[in-house]
Amino acid sequence: MRYEESVIEGRNAVIEAFRAGKAIDKLFILDGAQDGPIQTIKREAKKRDTMIKFVTRERLDQLSQTGKHQGVIAYAAAYTYAEVEDILAAARSKKEAPFVFLLDNIEDPHNLGAIIRTANLAGAHGVIIPKNRAAGLTAAVARTSAGALNYTPVARVTNLAQTMEALKKEGLWFVCADMDGTTMYQLDLTGPIGLVIGNEGDGVGRLIREKCDFVASIPMKGDIDSLNASVAAGVLAYEIVRQRMP
Amino acid sequence: MRYEESVIEGRNAVIEAFRAGKAIDKLFILDGAQDGPIQTIKREAKKRDTMIKFVTRERLDQLSQTGKHQGVIAYAAAYTYAEVEDILAAARSKKEAPFVFLLDNIEDPHNLGAIIRTANLAGAHGVIIPKNRAAGLTAAVARTSAGALNYTPVARVTNLAQTMEALKKEGLWFVCADMDGTTMYQLDLTGPIGLVIGNEGDGVGRLIREKCDFVASIPMKGDIDSLNASVAAGVLAYEIVRQRMP
Repeated sequence: MRYEESVIEGRNAVIEAFRAGKAIDKLFILDGAQDGPIQTIKREAKKRDTMIKFVTRERLDQLSQTGKHQGVIAYAAAYTYAEVEDILAAARSKKEAPFVFLLDNIEDPHNLGAIIRTANLAGAHGVIIPKNRAAGLTAAVARTSAGALNYTPVARVTNLAQTMEALKKEGLWFVCADMDGTTMYQLDLTGPIGLVIGNEGDGVGRLIREKCDFVASIPMKGDIDSLNASVAAGVLAYEIVRQRMP
Repeated sequence: MRYEESVIEGRNAVIEAFRAGKAIDKLFILDGAQDGPIQTIKREAKKRDTMIKFVTRERLDQLSQTGKHQGVIAYAAAYTYAEVEDILAAARSKKEAPFVFLLDNIEDPHNLGAIIRTANLAGAHGVIIPKNRAAGLTAAVARTSAGALNYTPVARVTNLAQTMEALKKEGLWFVCADMDGTTMYQLDLTGPIGLVIGNEGDGVGRLIREKCDFVASIPMKGDIDSLNASVAAGVLAYEIVRQRMP
């Protein structure tokens, strides 16, 4: 597997990339462009929930590596996303209760990479991330994951809350990290579990939090508000590891 | 407290900064410069263990903001370092057994910031870092510490091993994180403790490791080698927090 982020420029190239099923992370389109091929690209992007940024010609010229962007530049993920089912299958094949990380809009690629690394070492079966504004699997993420992307499947879903509902039917229950929950040491974190980590600034979104069965708090003995998101994920994940130890 | 990294250019300005006791993080000197003021600067730098980089005139011209570097540019830390004694005093004033982080050459400012943040929230009394190649307290570190630098004292020492010896006389004992140690859950991590975190790539140095009373291992259930340094620090710190809970 290789992790170079690839840049695709020009209308036909971008349409081809979509039709070939490439995972497009980011799409820049010339603001105001309305012709047929651009409409096709917008339609494909919409189908796949790809985020579109409408930008000026100057911005496109800056981003362009070929000088022939024709009003559209796409960044393709270097990595193929897994399906949620692949993650459940990984748990089954190891005869373990599923242990899944769900990231509610982690935006910093370094945090995402560090969390995938933690998921691998904590023995989680996979990581689920949302589309939209969250960080996707780029070269920076692959680098900071220190190779974990080769082993730990990452699935990307349109609607995290719906995915949680579906996983509840598979027997998972969910714990999210937040400030006013129960101290993590007092919760029973064994069994099929989804660990929900919130956004760096805003924490776990209201809708996602309402879907969680428990809110776990990390004891905070200091003066500031919160741990770094990847550190918080690590601390909680290892409390799960501790409780699951034979 | 403000955290702007300040740039000092020119021979007299740099000499003044040293004499005023400013904490110089980095010092760039024109390769081959041998005159009196440059010798004075080198001597001051040596006294304070400031790292010197000898660079070309082109590099200095690039770094210069004033265009008048006269062969020398210094970067002053935005933050005043504490003394190790301040950290012990903080523990005494809280009537707590000392809990100190020692960082054996953390090089990434984002890791350093995240670790100081963790130290604050885990209730540690301070962080000790070495001079030389380790990251110092720069604006980037202050930013990623999310305010923790305002509360948690950071001391910078010339010789980490000697500092450990001195702290042993104060009753501290030391645990470092490494791969072939005892599983952290099986160690008694209560009492006056120094938690030693190694370098991102190389782990804990041999000399420092030999000074540690215990080597603690985080259980690794996955395929890759190690957690991100700031995540590992968080996981170990919170095992200490858990064991110290009343």
